[in-house]
Amino acid sequence: MKSVQRMLEGSRRDCARLITLVENEHPKSKEILKRIYPHTGKAHVIGITGPPGGGKSTLTTRLAEQFRARNKRVGIVAVDPTSPFTGGAILGDRIRMKSLYEDEGVYIRSMGTRGHLGGLSKTTPGVVQILDAYGCDVIFVETVGVGQSEVEIVQNADTVIMVLVPGLGDDIQAIKAGVMEIGDLFVINKFDLDGAIRAKTEIEMMLQMDQRRESIPPVLPVISSAQGSNRSEGIEAVMEAIEDHRKDQVANGHWQRRRRLQARMEILSYMQSRVEAMLIEEIKKTSLDSVYQRLESPRERGEKILETWMKEGQANGKED
Amino acid sequence: MKSVQRMLEGSRRDCARLITLVENEHPKSKEILKRIYPHTGKAHVIGITGPPGGGKSTLTTRLAEQFRARNKRVGIVAVDPTSPFTGGAILGDRIRMKSLYEDEGVYIRSMGTRGHLGGLSKTTPGVVQILDAYGCDVIFVETVGVGQSEVEIVQNADTVIMVLVPGLGDDIQAIKAGVMEIGDLFVINKFDLDGAIRAKTEIEMMLQMDQRRESIPPVLPVISSAQGSNRSEGIEAVMEAIEDHRKDQVANGHWQRRRRLQARMEILSYMQSRVEAMLIEEIKKTSLDSVYQRLESPRERGEKILETWMKEGQANGKED
Repeated sequence: MKSVQRMLEGSRRDCARLITLVENEHPKSKEILKRIYPHTGKAHVIGITGPPGGGKSTLTTRLAEQFRARNKRVGIVAVDPTSPFTGGAILGDRIRMKSLYEDEGVYIRSMGTRGHLGGLSKTTPGVVQILDAYGCDVIFVETVGVGQSEVEIVQNADTVIMVLVPGLGDDIQAIKAGVMEIGDLFVINKFDLDGAIRAKTEIEMMLQMDQRRESIPPVLPVISSAQGSNRSEGIEAVMEAIEDHRKDQVANGHWQRRRRLQARMEILSYMQSRVEAMLIEEIKKTSLDSVYQRLESPRERGEKILETWMKEGQANGKED
Repeated sequence: MKSVQRMLEGSRRDCARLITLVENEHPKSKEILKRIYPHTGKAHVIGITGPPGGGKSTLTTRLAEQFRARNKRVGIVAVDPTSPFTGGAILGDRIRMKSLYEDEGVYIRSMGTRGHLGGLSKTTPGVVQILDAYGCDVIFVETVGVGQSEVEIVQNADTVIMVLVPGLGDDIQAIKAGVMEIGDLFVINKFDLDGAIRAKTEIEMMLQMDQRRESIPPVLPVISSAQGSNRSEGIEAVMEAIEDHRKDQVANGHWQRRRRLQARMEILSYMQSRVEAMLIEEIKKTSLDSVYQRLESPRERGEKILETWMKEGQANGKED
């Protein structure tokens, strides 16, 4: 595991190599994550989420520039297939991000161009941990905020920024249905569009009605449209809100509590993926004809297979 | 379980009651699904998916009307928070659907207004099974096609219709990333919009390049815009394509193979949810301090907890 040592000493190439191994769930993955774990926990992980077309990547770029100006090392993990970071957007966007790509203090990693989003929620925490151990002070994780798996991805963040835009009525409906609650701060991007003020008011009202929240998160107007990268307004306020969120969370103990919850979730999800592989094997070993013929329901059959498997217990408990 | 008997005899009220119990994962849920399973497998389940704003509900309405005209009983399960069926859209949409709501031959069930989408993938198959046992000949399952959990929902369908609209460049990018492969037939809705022909060509090219497909699915232009419900074009062709898909699948054996795969998935997912509950308990029993202090990685800890749990095997194998 010389790569791990070299990565910890600052080798960008080894960092990239390790990420690839972890992303591909290479057999070495487990050992890598074990070795680096003691070196993690220092970075501030910021989730950037929201519906497609909200300008998440442009906002990330602007924020990354600000952190760079403060001499912070920045990591960017894009799990969003519509993000220019993952190669999903028009060339112009990528050109505007050239400054980031050429900066040695910024590490950009694109994920999720190869398959379903869902599978990525499994490997993203590991990739973030590598960037953390590599020495990034701030790590952005950008993802489309619509389904459950995307929610899981951003739950690995210390601060979640929900990026919305005026006029996306349908999307706000979708977000209302449960995804809204994960935002620690809200950005109304493209605030120069029609209906911006109404959108802000609607979101503020929605947040005020949410009984589960201890305090109402800030809703910040921003203009960081990809068209005309010089027209950025409101970025400073977002930087301040990020810093305030960190300070508040550390002060009231939520910071640590959240990280512990993340660790628990990671333990559970690891165990689940190990067990899943065993259960699939167990199902293969039995006849499902009774279910195919609808004489027995899938649950009944599942219950019986599970019982057998549990009884065999120890025999199955071997390492794979 | 008199409700089951009454539902099988045609009681709409009991059907509603049973669905609610299953949806809420009531303790009786297991028994209900066991009792009805022998009465399932007759309905043609049609998944309607695609990005928000594509007019999925309007298309569903038009298709449901056609099936009603052919004297088929229709079930509609909406898992899409942006769907008018789930109450997520403007009042006008719901008024236009009034004919469906007042038709005794149509059963509409809305899900997913209460929480994350992800959790619904667990209970949706059960709800579909009830409608199947209730006697629906065709069951539509409408969901936003973006993330992994939505993919899981539509995988329970015999025929999946992917609904796209011209000009949603970003969304097509998102769909490209893996969701596209689940479509058995494609509808370009709102075909009167600009760029419709280009969108059709793009999608056809994308499908032709997909090596995994045995045959290229049809891409059908439709106008079933919510604005002006009388302007429906192309619905007949979709009806034909649905029927052709069914016939082809039955003829080449894919129909049965797919249903068997669904049954296997349902068995696995049931076992996983049972095991998850046990694993959560097992995690609670152990100290995670070594992980919190970053001395041990979540995977290492998970491995050890799993080992202990597997050894205890039988003791944990009891019913809950």
